[in-house]
Order: sequence, then C-alpha cells, then structure tokens
Amino acid sequence: MRLTVRTNLAMRALMFCAVNENRTVRKAEIAEACNSSENHLGVVINMLGQTGFIETTRGRNGGVRLKVDPQVLSVGQVFRVFESNVPFAECFAGSENHCPLTASCRLRGKLSIALEAFYIALDDVTLADLVEDNTGLHSLLQLETA
Amino acid sequence: MRLTVRTNLAMRALMFCAVNENRTVRKAEIAEACNSSENHLGVVINMLGQTGFIETTRGRNGGVRLKVDPQVLSVGQVFRVFESNVPFAECFAGSENHCPLTASCRLRGKLSIALEAFYIALDDVTLADLVEDNTGLHSLLQLETA
Repeated sequence: MRLTVRTNLAMRALMFCAVNENRTVRKAEIAEACNSSENHLGVVINMLGQTGFIETTRGRNGGVRLKVDPQVLSVGQVFRVFESNVPFAECFAGSENHCPLTASCRLRGKLSIALEAFYIALDDVTLADLVEDNTGLHSLLQLETA
Repeated sequence: MRLTVRTNLAMRALMFCAVNENRTVRKAEIAEACNSSENHLGVVINMLGQTGFIETTRGRNGGVRLKVDPQVLSVGQVFRVFESNVPFAECFAGSENHCPLTASCRLRGKLSIALEAFYIALDDVTLADLVEDNTGLHSLLQLETA
C-alpha cells in the first residue's frame, strides 16, 4: 500500500511551518525546501487552509503560517483528513467498486479495523514531536528571520 | 493510502480456494468469480505459489489448490508478503527517495510503527475467519464438485 503524495507533502509543509512558526512563509520557500512543485503544493496548502491547520494571507507580504499549536495538532488528525477521500481498496470506492464478493466479504470490516489501528498509532504523535529539539530538521528548514 | 490491486486479488483468490478447498480450481474459474483478468491473476497466483500458500499443478487437469490450513493462514501474513516490496511513502523507496528531509525526519519511524499496528490487526484474522459459515460467500464462489 502507498500513502498519497498529497498527505506526504502536507506533512512536509506542516513541519516547515512548525520550524518557522514565528513568521509567514511563502509557498515557493516550502516548495523549494520540501522538493515539490508549486502547483502540487498549492493544492495541499488550500486543503491545509480549509481544515484550519494553517492560515494563508494574500498579497505582497502574504504567505502561510501555522494556525494550530504544534503540541496539539496530531499527525493522525492530518492523515485522517487527507486520506479520507481516498478509497483504501476497491470495496471502499462506492460506485467505482466492481468486486463481485462485496456483499458477503468479511475482509472489508477487518481492513477498517486495521486502518483504524494505523490512525490511532498516529493520533499519539503531535507535530511538535516531529520538530521539537530536532536540530537536523531545523538546519534543513529554518529560514533566516525576516 | 491505497492497497495494491495485487494484494486485493490475492485475498480474493485465497478465499476462492478456501471455499473450494477440496478440489483443484482453474485460473479461469478464479478470474471469472473474482472479476480479474487472467494475466493479472497469473502474476498473483505465481506469488501465492512461491510463498507456499497454494500449490499449482500443470497440465490438462492442472490448477490451483490451497496448500495451508485456512485456520492457520493469517491475513496479516498474506499482506506482509504481498506488500513487502511496495514502498509505503517516498522515504521507504531506497534509491528512488528524493525527499530532502529524510536524514532528520521523525515521521518515517512513526509511520513504521503505525504500519505495524495495521498488520498486527490483520495477524489476528485467519482465512478461515473470512470464509467459515459465510453462506453468502459460498454461494458466490463455490463450484460444483467435480
């Protein structure tokens, strides 16, 4: 199984914002530090804004900054939001599901339980856990203070 | 995140074999019942044979049959085998990994723990749990006895 690129990029962007928590950062800065196209990152930033994880401001001095306390924002929360519209297997895909076993298949329920175990493991991890005292990450991501 | 089609199909094929445990089944029969192309299924059957989950016999009366007791074969075991060569995220991809954060990123370790929680949940589920007393599934998959 594979994580979506979108979720992966959302986590990179959030780590970037958390390392630079006291300033507004530009999309181009995140894209460069996180090795992403600005277009792809734009979609992710929109989603992060819609969920209230970051706030975006427009204009000359505009950009992105964290809207939630990294001590409070859990990785599980981010994953649940970003993965919620991706069907894990064909049988989670609604009208796109053509598996003939669906009506009598017990695997789907077991998969739902296993997926919940995956998310629960990430619910215990905060954004702060990923960045605090992580000097290596700070070296990679910290911008000069404006 | 998405499960690979290969793992999904492996589970369908194993359920088919388990429902028809006392006979050798043909690839075409599995393909038809499980809504798969024979080519795609062929790859999965080869892998299931290599892992020792099924045995395949060639020739006119050849086919596929379960090689392990469904009470013993766990879904986690199948998933671990079939998913083992699929990188969950870019940072699991070895030489294909171009994430600039890798050296200092703590997310990867947390993802490994979460993935293990996912597999552990499936370790508790046997193939027998999926098919035993599942009359609906038997109606869908059971072949007439030869």
